[in-house]
Order: sequence, then C-alpha cells, then structure tokens
Amino acid sequence: MQYHVNGELVARENATVSVDDRGFRYGDAAFETCRAYGGEVYRWQRHAERLQRTCETLGMPDAVPDDLALRVAETLDANDLEGAYVRTSISRGVQLGKLTPDEDVDPTVVVYVRPLPRGGVDGERVWDDPAVVQSVKTRRPPDAALPADAKTHNYLNGILARLELRTASSDTYQPDEALIRDTDGYVAEGSTSNLFFVDDGVVKTPAEGSLLPGITRELVIELAESEEFPVETGRYTLDNVRSADEAFLTNTTWELRPIETVDGIELGGGPMTSLLQRLYDERVETRCY
Amino acid sequence: MQYHVNGELVARENATVSVDDRGFRYGDAAFETCRAYGGEVYRWQRHAERLQRTCETLGMPDAVPDDLALRVAETLDANDLEGAYVRTSISRGVQLGKLTPDEDVDPTVVVYVRPLPRGGVDGERVWDDPAVVQSVKTRRPPDAALPADAKTHNYLNGILARLELRTASSDTYQPDEALIRDTDGYVAEGSTSNLFFVDDGVVKTPAEGSLLPGITRELVIELAESEEFPVETGRYTLDNVRSADEAFLTNTTWELRPIETVDGIELGGGPMTSLLQRLYDERVETRCY
Repeated sequence: MQYHVNGELVARENATVSVDDRGFRYGDAAFETCRAYGGEVYRWQRHAERLQRTCETLGMPDAVPDDLALRVAETLDANDLEGAYVRTSISRGVQLGKLTPDEDVDPTVVVYVRPLPRGGVDGERVWDDPAVVQSVKTRRPPDAALPADAKTHNYLNGILARLELRTASSDTYQPDEALIRDTDGYVAEGSTSNLFFVDDGVVKTPAEGSLLPGITRELVIELAESEEFPVETGRYTLDNVRSADEAFLTNTTWELRPIETVDGIELGGGPMTSLLQRLYDERVETRCY
Repeated sequence: MQYHVNGELVARENATVSVDDRGFRYGDAAFETCRAYGGEVYRWQRHAERLQRTCETLGMPDAVPDDLALRVAETLDANDLEGAYVRTSISRGVQLGKLTPDEDVDPTVVVYVRPLPRGGVDGERVWDDPAVVQSVKTRRPPDAALPADAKTHNYLNGILARLELRTASSDTYQPDEALIRDTDGYVAEGSTSNLFFVDDGVVKTPAEGSLLPGITRELVIELAESEEFPVETGRYTLDNVRSADEAFLTNTTWELRPIETVDGIELGGGPMTSLLQRLYDERVETRCY
C-alpha cells in the first residue's frame, strides 16, 4: 500500500511524520474519512468543504492544498483501488518550542487508503452484523470546549467511550459501538457514527450542536425528505431511543447500519431502515451526489 | 539534538512516527513535560506517577517502559545537557483499521529534550516578563468528557484558547496566556499553567476537578503550607482573580511566573509571590524533592 505524504507517494512502511509534528504532539490536525466507489471519492465536495471549515476553526485557513483531490486520485491510482477507504489529514506541521500556533503554517498533508470493496445495489456491507450499541458514561465535550462540527485528531473522547465497552463486554454480550450523550444527558452520537431512529413513521436524529454532523447523516436526511417521510431533529433521551420502532447508525464506511440492540434492548432495522438503505445504494450506484 | 524513539537515540531530523501511529491519528497518547537541573529531572517520581495514571486512564496500563528514567538520562547525556526541557510521550502505537483500542499495545515511546539552562537561586527565568493573561470564551471540557487529570496529546482545547489571543492582540496589548474557565464559568487554569492568586494573605488556587493539577502547583501548595500561610482551594470567578492582591502562574518550565495583568487589569506579583519563588528556588538549588 502507498500513502501520499506531503506531495509524495510513499510505501506505507515509510510514511512517517516528525515526532515534533503538532499532529502527533497535540492532535493539532483536521481530517476526513471518505469512501471511494469505482475509483471516485463519493461526495468529495462535501468532505472537502468540511475539511476546510475544520482548518478555519483551527486557525489555519490556508492549510488545505489546492491539489488535494488530485493527491487522493493519485493515491487511489497508485494502489490500483476502485473501492476504498480514504482518509485525508492536515496537521499544523512542525512549529518548535511553543503551544501558541504560529500564523505561518507548513502543514503536513497525508492521504491514507485501504481497500474497501463494495458490490452494486446488492453489494457487500463492510459490517458483518447489525450494531450492538451500549450507552456509556463518557459525555461529549460541549461545543464551547471543543467545537462539535470540527473533525480533528483530538479523538480521545470517542476512544474513551469505546474503552468502556471493554468493561461492558462478556462472552455473550459484545457491544461494538458506544452511544455518547451530551453533558445534559441527551443522546448525541456514536464514537464514529450518527444515530437515527424511527418512531411512528417519523425519522428522528439528534440535532446539531453537540455532535459532528456526518456527510452520510446529511444525505440520509435528504433521502427521507425526498420520499416525503417526516424527519425531525431534536434532543432525545435514551428512553426515546430504546422505545423506537427501528434504529440505525450512519457513517461514511458503514453507510446505514441497523442497530440490533441498545443496552441489551432489542430494536433492529425495519421497513424504513431497509428503504433508506436501498435509496442510499441507488445513489451510490448512480454516483449521484 | 538527539531524541530517544522506541529505545534508540536518533537525530531530531530523523525522529519520526508512522502516520498510522494512533498518537498522530487520534492524539491517543500520554505525556509529561519535565525539567532537568544539573542533569537530573526534577521531581521525576511525581511525573512518572502521573504518566502511569494517564496511561491507566487510557486503558494501556503496561505502556510505560520500565527503563523510561534510563532513556531520559541517556538522552540528556547524549546531548550533553544539564539544564533541559524534557518531554516524554507514550502513544498507543500503530493498530490498523479500527478506533476501538486493542488490548495488546506496542507503544511508541519518545523522549524529547532541548536546552533550558537555569542559574542558581538567582538564575535566569525562562520567561522574559510577567504574564499578560486574557480570559477566553473557550471552556475546559468537563471531567465526564475528558478526564481532567489525564495529560494527553488531545491538546486542542488549550490551543483553541491560545488562538483566541490572536484576535485579542493589538500593537499595545499582547496577551501570552489564556485563562480558561469551566463550563459553569469558574476559573480553571491557563492553557499550559495553573493559576494562583493571593487575597488578604491567603494563597488561593482553583480546586481539582476541572483542571490538570500540575506538579509545580502541588509543590507551591506544599511550600506555602510549610511556611504556615493559609492555602485555600475552591471555585473562583474572574472577579475574584481580578480583585486579588497578587497573582501568578505555575508550570514546570515557567516555575512561578507573576501575572502582570488579567484582561488588562493590573495585578502583578508581590511579597507572597516573591517569597514562594525564593522557596521554590531553594528547593531546586538543593535538589530537594
């Protein structure tokens, strides 16, 4: 596998950054996780816009290179990949000696890829089974502490949430996604996914403000609205989720993944989940952005 | 300059980590900033204990190598350093393909050094002037979102606070430390420092819970108590700080640094600050831990 580091294709084993890189020292970096179908990154424009916004939030508005899309294409080409996981990371690079960021940024730009094939409308999912979801004690940092809509290398909150699943696991129960609430106790999102649930025919998802609004979440809302299903965003409790008719998670690699259980309570997919999956598949199939 | 990376001394230019290192991808790492005087790391034991605690919080209790103190000593030796800044970082290393940490950890261990000389009791400070402190909008993440007493590579909160100083700066006003409050509005700490202020002869500092309790903070409390000055920890407002008689910041490299102004309001050091500085100097001078 070859990655793209600061403008050069390099074998993964040689793809490195300085230990002084602020991405390593402080998680001082922005990233996007994308997915390529047929050699093309799906909804690249939306990912690129969010990456730019995150870099602006981090005070490095000029850090994203103009030719980032080209670098991604080169990396897919070099690895002969059609269906792929693609991650782009932009760190503030090396600035020795102080925490206060220098305005003059020489960013570190990394494109990661790995094979992630997908068939057509009836293609294979990347997940084997519906999600087993467990709510955790770890709460989302409020927007005032870490801007919720910035996708950064400061990812410990999600990792700490996943670590709690270790303790919750047993021989017969293995949760694989953590459901994180905000500091007011309302459901926010999974460690790497957004949450949807269906209640009396209404598609519901936690409102923006204390979660990272995903590119897949956005499309799913669009798909539901295009079919004239009511979509509601709001503040929901764990009980609201547990008593839903259907529930699923979304992210770029999972696409739509039904939830089997939340805290051991059965939910499962259903007709709405299946329909939205099918609509999503069709969009991917037709490369419709 | 030579750093120590995974058991080897390497020239700084060649000191790298994989772009897949979780320290880079997620800030999934613990660290300590220490200071060496006369070739010896001051209060190493306390730093080592906190590093171990942070690694335990991150679910990698065995990540700190047994010979870390030796690696630090080797690094100081190789660079012929007596007075030095020393940073030790322990990341979860490379674990490809998923966010959930694997229990089997092959950590990345980095020792960074740079010269940081200090004279004796009347030696030079690392800072040129007292601190110009500006309170910021960015709030500390609550303990439930990111454990306050874990010192990790997720340092964006402090960086975002420092970025606010850019906007606040003018030709005549250049704040160099941000004062961060918790989500309830109480004063917590600086981006890289703990806060003390003196009020009617009482030494006050924000209580643990929403701040990283520094090793220098701990020693300053001990020094004040050893002189039988009353020390109070509590929840304080910005007004409490602004109306204090004296105020200063502490961290390992600054030691005790008087605050000139907070939000433009003059505070300055005073007899208590000077006395505590002198007592700190004597501890360093006699290598008393």
